[in-house]
Amino acid sequence: MPLKRKVAILGATGTVGQRFIHLLDGHPWFEVSVLAASERSAGKKYSEACKWRMENPMPEAVKDITVVKTNLKEVKQVGDVDLVFSALPGSVAGPIEEEFAIKYPVVSKASAHRMSRDVPLIIPEVNPDHLQLIEVQRKMRGWNGFISTDPNCSTIQLAITLKALMKFRVKRVIVSTMQALSGAGYPGVPSLDIIDNVIPYISREEEKMESETLKILGTLRNGEIQPANITISASCHRVHVKDGHMEAVFAELEEKPDIDDVKKAFREFSGEPQRLKLPTAPEKPIIVKEEKDRPQPRLDRNAGRGMSVVVGRIREDPIMTIKYLCLGHNTIRGAAGAGVLSAELMVKKGIL
Amino acid sequence: MPLKRKVAILGATGTVGQRFIHLLDGHPWFEVSVLAASERSAGKKYSEACKWRMENPMPEAVKDITVVKTNLKEVKQVGDVDLVFSALPGSVAGPIEEEFAIKYPVVSKASAHRMSRDVPLIIPEVNPDHLQLIEVQRKMRGWNGFISTDPNCSTIQLAITLKALMKFRVKRVIVSTMQALSGAGYPGVPSLDIIDNVIPYISREEEKMESETLKILGTLRNGEIQPANITISASCHRVHVKDGHMEAVFAELEEKPDIDDVKKAFREFSGEPQRLKLPTAPEKPIIVKEEKDRPQPRLDRNAGRGMSVVVGRIREDPIMTIKYLCLGHNTIRGAAGAGVLSAELMVKKGIL
Amino acid sequence: MPLKRKVAILGATGTVGQRFIHLLDGHPWFEVSVLAASERSAGKKYSEACKWRMENPMPEAVKDITVVKTNLKEVKQVGDVDLVFSALPGSVAGPIEEEFAIKYPVVSKASAHRMSRDVPLIIPEVNPDHLQLIEVQRKMRGWNGFISTDPNCSTIQLAITLKALMKFRVKRVIVSTMQALSGAGYPGVPSLDIIDNVIPYISREEEKMESETLKILGTLRNGEIQPANITISASCHRVHVKDGHMEAVFAELEEKPDIDDVKKAFREFSGEPQRLKLPTAPEKPIIVKEEKDRPQPRLDRNAGRGMSVVVGRIREDPIMTIKYLCLGHNTIRGAAGAGVLSAELMVKKGIL
Amino acid sequence: MPLKRKVAILGATGTVGQRFIHLLDGHPWFEVSVLAASERSAGKKYSEACKWRMENPMPEAVKDITVVKTNLKEVKQVGDVDLVFSALPGSVAGPIEEEFAIKYPVVSKASAHRMSRDVPLIIPEVNPDHLQLIEVQRKMRGWNGFISTDPNCSTIQLAITLKALMKFRVKRVIVSTMQALSGAGYPGVPSLDIIDNVIPYISREEEKMESETLKILGTLRNGEIQPANITISASCHRVHVKDGHMEAVFAELEEKPDIDDVKKAFREFSGEPQRLKLPTAPEKPIIVKEEKDRPQPRLDRNAGRGMSVVVGRIREDPIMTIKYLCLGHNTIRGAAGAGVLSAELMVKKGIL
Repeated sequence: MPLKRKVAILGATGTVGQRFIHLLDGHPWFEVSVLAASERSAGKKYSEACKWRMENPMPEAVKDITVVKTNLKEVKQVGDVDLVFSALPGSVAGPIEEEFAIKYPVVSKASAHRMSRDVPLIIPEVNPDHLQLIEVQRKMRGWNGFISTDPNCSTIQLAITLKALMKFRVKRVIVSTMQALSGAGYPGVPSLDIIDNVIPYISREEEKMESETLKILGTLRNGEIQPANITISASCHRVHVKDGHMEAVFAELEEKPDIDDVKKAFREFSGEPQRLKLPTAPEKPIIVKEEKDRPQPRLDRNAGRGMSVVVGRIREDPIMTIKYLCLGHNTIRGAAGAGVLSAELMVKKGIL
Repeated sequence: MPLKRKVAILGATGTVGQRFIHLLDGHPWFEVSVLAASERSAGKKYSEACKWRMENPMPEAVKDITVVKTNLKEVKQVGDVDLVFSALPGSVAGPIEEEFAIKYPVVSKASAHRMSRDVPLIIPEVNPDHLQLIEVQRKMRGWNGFISTDPNCSTIQLAITLKALMKFRVKRVIVSTMQALSGAGYPGVPSLDIIDNVIPYISREEEKMESETLKILGTLRNGEIQPANITISASCHRVHVKDGHMEAVFAELEEKPDIDDVKKAFREFSGEPQRLKLPTAPEKPIIVKEEKDRPQPRLDRNAGRGMSVVVGRIREDPIMTIKYLCLGHNTIRGAAGAGVLSAELMVKKGIL
Repeated sequence: MPLKRKVAILGATGTVGQRFIHLLDGHPWFEVSVLAASERSAGKKYSEACKWRMENPMPEAVKDITVVKTNLKEVKQVGDVDLVFSALPGSVAGPIEEEFAIKYPVVSKASAHRMSRDVPLIIPEVNPDHLQLIEVQRKMRGWNGFISTDPNCSTIQLAITLKALMKFRVKRVIVSTMQALSGAGYPGVPSLDIIDNVIPYISREEEKMESETLKILGTLRNGEIQPANITISASCHRVHVKDGHMEAVFAELEEKPDIDDVKKAFREFSGEPQRLKLPTAPEKPIIVKEEKDRPQPRLDRNAGRGMSVVVGRIREDPIMTIKYLCLGHNTIRGAAGAGVLSAELMVKKGIL
Repeated sequence: MPLKRKVAILGATGTVGQRFIHLLDGHPWFEVSVLAASERSAGKKYSEACKWRMENPMPEAVKDITVVKTNLKEVKQVGDVDLVFSALPGSVAGPIEEEFAIKYPVVSKASAHRMSRDVPLIIPEVNPDHLQLIEVQRKMRGWNGFISTDPNCSTIQLAITLKALMKFRVKRVIVSTMQALSGAGYPGVPSLDIIDNVIPYISREEEKMESETLKILGTLRNGEIQPANITISASCHRVHVKDGHMEAVFAELEEKPDIDDVKKAFREFSGEPQRLKLPTAPEKPIIVKEEKDRPQPRLDRNAGRGMSVVVGRIREDPIMTIKYLCLGHNTIRGAAGAGVLSAELMVKKGIL
């Protein structure tokens, strides 16, 4: 690796932006060089513009960076940028990311472009070949840069486990989630809503899980993704946990493997990030727990530095074929870590 | 109604026992007359033997009752008893309840006898006719009294909603629970286990939901219950909520009603407790919420004084037929309230 | 009592406004007649304008009331109003309340006018005579109506206990609080800030406790209040509790009563609301607990329907004279209940 | 440093024992060699005997160690031991530690011997000279080994901050605590007791803070410790936090430093562990936060790898001289970390 790529972060003062900064601190290939945020923060030092909410202290390297407004002109003026991470809210990300993609590669956590035909929706262990869509996209849109997206947090961990099960031909999946508060950003869920309570609704979350998963597990053919021939039904709920989404999964498989084969499939699952030894790749994408009461968010969310999905209670199901629980760290594997891992893959693939 | 029935409570100092005392305070038909507990409490006044944990204060009427040991001889010596409520732990309830049933009617919250062939497992709105098993039982066992049982807390609320759906012929049900801490009794779940966490395992809970429901929805024929021809798959999880179990239900129905018909079936569902205007019966066994983020445990668990099941987010399901959430107060509808309502039904049926 | 007084509530859709509506439901002397809120809510039915957050359902009587904008002209047009309860945020309450006071009696929960020389700061059990300031105020300001204020939630419960101790001549008080989330209103404290955490700062809370208490316990002389000759030092902290502020109090008294005398003083404390049997008055303003681990917010906050202050762990202090804990329901005794009780006192005093 | 000292841990399966194992993993001077626990665990591998509750995984090095019973004979049979860490419960620690001290140096977290005249109660930054008591103890008791104790968790962090203030001559201290759940061990506080609640009582905690602090800050003269001439009054409360005790401190000083001098005294405070660069010593024993809402347990408890005390909101007090908040990680600085740091000091002093 020669020089480090220079990185701009859009939405740098929000919680996903902060997590990007945390994960890029000391990164061997990337260097944070531009921090963009709303008008209110622009012109201030990052340490003044941002109320830091991570448990780890703010990296020294970003404290004195002057925040710029989130538009192409301002970012260009700052100097060289090789890559843009977008931590923008879904509601505003659409046109801004398109503007940036004219010039820069954009790796986006936002939902705006995820389901666009020519935009890859990447989990590096699952569908690295979908990065080929970038060429399609560039041709169609005439961009120098491009947009690549990361899936929704609750989708990522489910899709990783389903990918490991695809050898048994997954047909139908019912999933019921118990999702963490950090998934709603900051300020997010009011404490008065969640104390001694469960909120059985997360706006558009079920739709995302039901549609994104099919695209991710789909097949790229002739420059188009054929969605996987699977049906997914989700019910999404918010519980009193800081980080770590839990999902109770009931999966129907065409083949009827025994439980040990399923565990083996989970344990042996590995992808390009592992083969390429990407810096952020966990040694094991899926960790299988044998204890009867695991995974648990507080005990298991940091497995693989927050990049492993932890699976447990794998058992036969009397209606579908198997049932199990899976847990992922929603702001690492489910958000900023997903973006960083995607970008690392692009570096190795020569796209960045 | 002439005189009040005199009631003994076994396991009177535990949380279910306390809830019985709370619900029987001022009851028009029942009067607490004997409180039985472990050796440690025996001989003390109830107010001294019991660390009261209900939010409502301890009823004056029980404070000075002297606690006796939980055995037939001791209870008999105290005087007249017309009915025994058992709030004993499942692990010890079996032989003790059998001893009491020789002489007394026993309405039990414990799991010990629930699945016995000649023991009714009653939800008054769902299967009041199963009380006929009592005669079978008495003949077979030669008892003057009998044992009737209440289902597991998470089963009760599910079974009530399924009963309302039986007109559409329920075939298969997948249910994922988010259960309250009080379901584990006291001291129950250590705070260090549940803070910022979910525990994805409750011992024997899934088995209970999967088997008890079939018995409850089954058909009594020739003195035997034919279990309902339904398959149920459950995944049970403990969350950080004090009272109120939430259940995400995915139900396959043979008929394909539209959502409005399902809502109507829930709303119009009513049973013998409503017809007979039993004192503890809620006006509506099922309350349907239209808000997109309800039911919620803290806001809805006290509906119908804790005896209504609250249903919400009823929607079509791409795999099964419908999906919805249901909520019930696990220590009222799911425990002591279930026992009191059963006993009220027995009074009206002439069994008590 | 002849006809019911007609009541307008300013800030009717917020949490304090909702609590006023809850407490006034079925009130023998008052009837909610006008609900005023922000422009966004104006013109809608209350049931549509308000996301109801109380555990009790929204009273039928208010559901169809059309919300008006919070200004004098709009409220006047609706019809007769005898009394205005202000549940406005402190930041906007000042000029609005002054506008309303030209015409109407205003009983305010807001902080804006609390420390004004001619505005009474009332706890009905503590300083009912301070209502005489209303005449001073009317003369000075030329108003037909007036403004009377209720203290800050954490102040009220402290001041009630100190009033009971004044017979021992209170000199200095150190108080450290553990305050509930509902004290911050809605949306208030983000869940990500308080999960597994304590926030050791509440804006301006310490100043309010240190100054308001002296005015409340002060002496009205020649139309002016001499603040009590006491020094108070507060340290205020937010903890993970829904309702109910806890305060650890260390009090120096000039006399050195023994602990039994202190308990007696608390137990026997009573005021005009009790003598006048005001509808919202608790039988006992102060309840003394003898258990070593009480008061506790969840178990004790509803004592006296949320209007009693619960005191416990009264013990000698090696530095001051005594130390104890006190607990009050911050949105009932500490907010809407305080306003209603004040208004009831005004009715009996002929001020309304 | 030549060879590593071999360490035995008594009470190795409990939460403090687990924390010792966690902190000793990879320690440069100490090596876990014997794990002792109750009869139930004896004979099993540690990985089987212990339900591991730390967030970090169980160190490989201890997994296969066979647990022995907690008595001298069994431990001696295992082989060489240079040092014993006692993580025994206070109720049983007394005679067991005395038995071990006949042969081994015992560094104890238990309360049993803390206030004994000839037993040092050590905070390495505060009173390292009190280690001289060990010689007195050995002579008096005729032991080859000795007992040295660590203070109570809530005492340690208070005493460190008071030591930094001693230059201004501390006279009287009022402290009100908000303590974490892990302070009660496992299973400890039932979740039903603390959800939506505060428990205003911790058995014997106030007495410990009020007495231990005086011994720690006392002066060793002629083989005896003169307690410091300070008065302390504590009120102790349990709140819904996993780790990290918060304390609101009101301190009267004979000198009247201005706030900047106080901050300077905190910031510059340093002790022998820092001078000797002990492996577990934090760079700064006290960290001063300037933000108005810090320290906070979840954000600050891991400062200095859990060994720093974090102080904030230092302000003038109208009754005492200053008030401030302090936070310490109760199971690291307040428990196992305290023991390890003490042992490190003993190594450097030639006592081990």
